[in-house]
Amino acid sequence: MAVYRLIVAYRGTAYAGWQRQSNALGVQQVLEEALAGLLGRAVSVVGAGRTDAGVHARGQAVHLCLPGPFPEKGLVFGTNHYLTADVRVMAAESVKTGFHARKHALSKEYRYHLVRARVLSPVDALFAVRAQPDLDLAAVRRATELLPGRHDFSAFALSGGAHTQPWRRILEAEWHEEGPRITFRVVGEGFLRGMVRALVGTLLEVGRGRRSVSDFGELLTGRPRAEAGPTAPPEGLILQRVDYDPLWEGPEGD
Amino acid sequence: MAVYRLIVAYRGTAYAGWQRQSNALGVQQVLEEALAGLLGRAVSVVGAGRTDAGVHARGQAVHLCLPGPFPEKGLVFGTNHYLTADVRVMAAESVKTGFHARKHALSKEYRYHLVRARVLSPVDALFAVRAQPDLDLAAVRRATELLPGRHDFSAFALSGGAHTQPWRRILEAEWHEEGPRITFRVVGEGFLRGMVRALVGTLLEVGRGRRSVSDFGELLTGRPRAEAGPTAPPEGLILQRVDYDPLWEGPEGD
Repeated sequence: MAVYRLIVAYRGTAYAGWQRQSNALGVQQVLEEALAGLLGRAVSVVGAGRTDAGVHARGQAVHLCLPGPFPEKGLVFGTNHYLTADVRVMAAESVKTGFHARKHALSKEYRYHLVRARVLSPVDALFAVRAQPDLDLAAVRRATELLPGRHDFSAFALSGGAHTQPWRRILEAEWHEEGPRITFRVVGEGFLRGMVRALVGTLLEVGRGRRSVSDFGELLTGRPRAEAGPTAPPEGLILQRVDYDPLWEGPEGD
Repeated sequence: MAVYRLIVAYRGTAYAGWQRQSNALGVQQVLEEALAGLLGRAVSVVGAGRTDAGVHARGQAVHLCLPGPFPEKGLVFGTNHYLTADVRVMAAESVKTGFHARKHALSKEYRYHLVRARVLSPVDALFAVRAQPDLDLAAVRRATELLPGRHDFSAFALSGGAHTQPWRRILEAEWHEEGPRITFRVVGEGFLRGMVRALVGTLLEVGRGRRSVSDFGELLTGRPRAEAGPTAPPEGLILQRVDYDPLWEGPEGD
């Protein structure tokens, strides 16, 4: 058996999220059908993370098992031949048997894009949301400095999600500004469902002067969801990359 | 009579170009219909430049004449209420009687976006095209240095265009690189139809080692279209802005 890791990018606009669903189209289903077209047999893939409806990915990672070796370029260009234009396999690599895209992920990086503008340009609107021109980014940054570390993120978990425990470790969190474009970059060992967008929605309240930095800090101690701010819209969010231990790379040596 | 200049942004993906046409949908028609919805009467707009099918704009400029004054914010938000999401009025300002968006344009800036990649991500694909990873950008830049000045651009005019004369003055031309993203920025007093995309298609031949810098320079002396390279795809091109003499701003003083 040969195990492969694929890096998959997609525009989430048209999809009900990553996960295969019975009543709506998920990116997983689109990818599995393209792989079936290439390989001539049903194939299941396991994704590192479940992006929500409308959320994009530049670097979703998935694994799949094949009966035997398949050339890596063939997996990339062959699968893309069967895929629609808004989903692409960016890369494929052989990994060791036992590799699991979700369970073995060490960390994930998300980015959330905003543009300060009175009117959001249609050139930006598919992958970013509007921020008010006078947003206080300095205050947003002071609140963001509280994020790295291990916290109870109950206040930022999408209600309805079945979370075994609400503690997650954030490794990096920062805001990048270039002209009118503002990007929130966050790296964590894991994220609760809807967590990045709830963080963005709440941090923007700090930037509008509607919430203090210390109030934001209080939310990291296990407050209920209702005390935090709104969930920011999905179109601004991109799953940028998933990191793994390099020991998984390459086929088995034995 | 009150004359207004609107700054209009659009995703060109779904449109047959800027100009109103009898057999296909142009952005001009969409904008005129939205203005008619707001103002309750037929309105004609004149654009600074005719972008081709699939080409985007962040800063197309248009003028329109109204029987009397109309609040500028009302023009922006009111027109946007009637517009589809892929066209937006970004700004509106009163200009002096006699202002003409095309005839009085001093210069236009276009940008062409590429991404060095083996596979182009769907997150980039609506507004950029793929460049080969080993593109020789230094050679492209040496050829680009020949562009500023007044040249006979016959070699870069889309065949079929009815051009009175093929001389145009380029004011600035440069390539910007950030990670895998490459952007060609060009400012000129005017452009022939298809000229920016033919320049990009030909400069990329220089970057692939298929054409020398001096051969590119020869093309600026009035060679036929067939001697230059291909027209680069429309999705990478954006009309960034149009500049005017500030004397036109503000309503008439008398």
